[in-house]
Amino acid sequence: MKLTMDREDILPILANMANIADRRPIQPILAHVLIEAAGQHCRFIATDQEVQLSVDKDHPVDTPGSCAVPARKLYDICRALPEHTPLEFHKDGEKLLLKAVKSRFTLHVLPAEQFPYLNIHSSRCQGDCEATLFREALAVTANTMAQNDARIFLNGVLLEVQGQEMRLVATDGHRLSMMTLPFANSLEEKSFQCILPRKAVMELLRIVNGGNIHLSLSDTSFVLDDGDQQFACKLIDAKYPDYRRVIPQGHPFSAMLDRQNFKCALQQSEVLVSDRNPTTQVHLGKNLMTLSSRNEEQEEGEIELSIEYQNDEMNIAFNSRYLTDSIQIFSQENIRMRIKDGNSAAVFTPPDSDNPVYILMPVRL
Amino acid sequence: MKLTMDREDILPILANMANIADRRPIQPILAHVLIEAAGQHCRFIATDQEVQLSVDKDHPVDTPGSCAVPARKLYDICRALPEHTPLEFHKDGEKLLLKAVKSRFTLHVLPAEQFPYLNIHSSRCQGDCEATLFREALAVTANTMAQNDARIFLNGVLLEVQGQEMRLVATDGHRLSMMTLPFANSLEEKSFQCILPRKAVMELLRIVNGGNIHLSLSDTSFVLDDGDQQFACKLIDAKYPDYRRVIPQGHPFSAMLDRQNFKCALQQSEVLVSDRNPTTQVHLGKNLMTLSSRNEEQEEGEIELSIEYQNDEMNIAFNSRYLTDSIQIFSQENIRMRIKDGNSAAVFTPPDSDNPVYILMPVRL
Repeated sequence: MKLTMDREDILPILANMANIADRRPIQPILAHVLIEAAGQHCRFIATDQEVQLSVDKDHPVDTPGSCAVPARKLYDICRALPEHTPLEFHKDGEKLLLKAVKSRFTLHVLPAEQFPYLNIHSSRCQGDCEATLFREALAVTANTMAQNDARIFLNGVLLEVQGQEMRLVATDGHRLSMMTLPFANSLEEKSFQCILPRKAVMELLRIVNGGNIHLSLSDTSFVLDDGDQQFACKLIDAKYPDYRRVIPQGHPFSAMLDRQNFKCALQQSEVLVSDRNPTTQVHLGKNLMTLSSRNEEQEEGEIELSIEYQNDEMNIAFNSRYLTDSIQIFSQENIRMRIKDGNSAAVFTPPDSDNPVYILMPVRL
Repeated sequence: MKLTMDREDILPILANMANIADRRPIQPILAHVLIEAAGQHCRFIATDQEVQLSVDKDHPVDTPGSCAVPARKLYDICRALPEHTPLEFHKDGEKLLLKAVKSRFTLHVLPAEQFPYLNIHSSRCQGDCEATLFREALAVTANTMAQNDARIFLNGVLLEVQGQEMRLVATDGHRLSMMTLPFANSLEEKSFQCILPRKAVMELLRIVNGGNIHLSLSDTSFVLDDGDQQFACKLIDAKYPDYRRVIPQGHPFSAMLDRQNFKCALQQSEVLVSDRNPTTQVHLGKNLMTLSSRNEEQEEGEIELSIEYQNDEMNIAFNSRYLTDSIQIFSQENIRMRIKDGNSAAVFTPPDSDNPVYILMPVRL
């Protein structure tokens, strides 16, 4: 194998490959990126056996061939080289020689035949959606996934296709977030559910950019293709709970909050919450919200905040960290908060729509 | 005690106080900042019994008084408040009430009498110097202090006054850095040595700004006064080794390196050094430096670098991390490297002066 590439052409690819490859692999090959070069085409693939990223690049090849190269070392070398250095890759037996003008490196390679491609099953549901919307839905739901929960289905994001819509949902049992986006469903199967594991969600947030993406979903695997890169992962093998039961209906009271002011008030109130039991009490009065917190030493904070609210006076308490997360979910200037009483979940949405939604259970005092 | 202050006036002071105060104190008072208010004057003091910072501020006081307030919580509250919020501090028994327009906080305070001021002894050596130069000398030497060395005198920076000069020196046994600056010595004692502990060096780097500073040194304590703030610390109670014996004399060969190119070459070479024994081999030839590295897997890197060098060919090897530190020490475009042979320490300096100096022992292969 022999090919020449500009540093700038390969660096972003290698950055993603080094992230996907395993840092402390059980099998050495999992720390490697497979390079396949033939004709006018190069392909780079890395996997940790949970997720897999494959990037195709049209590029002339001097001598076709393939080998698996230590992903992190190759990336670190290329990153340290000056901008626009031409790189010459030359596989020589069990070694890869990398020449870069005044620098020469020798890396150990493994045979391409050892590379453990992820098993991908034929899809039951396929379709297209906008990358930016899909990315936003991942970012919203990533906030509320559980981490290392014994209920393994909570350690990820539910991906639900219903007709021409896709919905992403995540909950850790205390709060739930979801976002719906258009999905050009191209198979008969009109309804489909699968659970993306946490690691896949985090990697997708890194690699999904703009444009259009094509998704292929099966019972065991998820594949995303944006034309240049193909991302695949295994799914969490479990059934997601019926999240619809959690979504409150007919909340009579509604408050409109200025997001920046709300954020500022929450940051103040968080200083004096209890470490073991971080709780913020919310009092709603006519156009006024009051946040109160108190720690184990009986130190207290009370912060008033102008809001739009015309309904009954109301007291409700929340885990203060989860309440603060409501700010991460939305990007609009205002947030709508709907409530029923001090014992029912509060519903946060943008001011003029119900998408995305953040549902937060209150704390009983 | 009662006083009113603008958030912007107090925030930078509280930031420094929160850094000095102990996060996990043995005595609760060490996590507190003492506020003393009387007449037209406020003073803020924090100490962890190793270092102490005291900041004076001319400011009208409504009711004089003093108390010790949890430093980190007070800082976090003020930081979370909107810019230019007027803050009203009011001590009421064992509590401090803090009002900030729409926010109210209650913090537990401790009586001022409990505050454990650091013992400062009358000075044996006093004088003035430029803050920016002193800061630069601290930054240079901070790179080469030892950390948790059994030889406690190495875990800090030697401060040596000789006539009208002050020299800062630090070594961990493998390399040494030093910088000399003018010092307007105002006492008869013409020669004086003391050792600043690591923690004091790190805190001084945070708080020393521009202007002129006055230093008062005794056998057990160091005091820095810049007019607004007074920093004091205990000294390391030990004798510093005779660092002059380490400084090589009459190194015949000299190379001039471009700092940015040298940095880029070192970063490349570092990727393939051994983890256990990170070594970079340096070959000097006519106007050419070659850096070579090799890891446990026999992977290799070789990087050529144009330099100015007209002397004999030379091979010398260094710990690659310590070699890379030579880049941190200097800010000039070029670095001069003087050598004698492969077994003698190399001396790095700016191109046109011997100040600061970085001396690096070679690795025997």
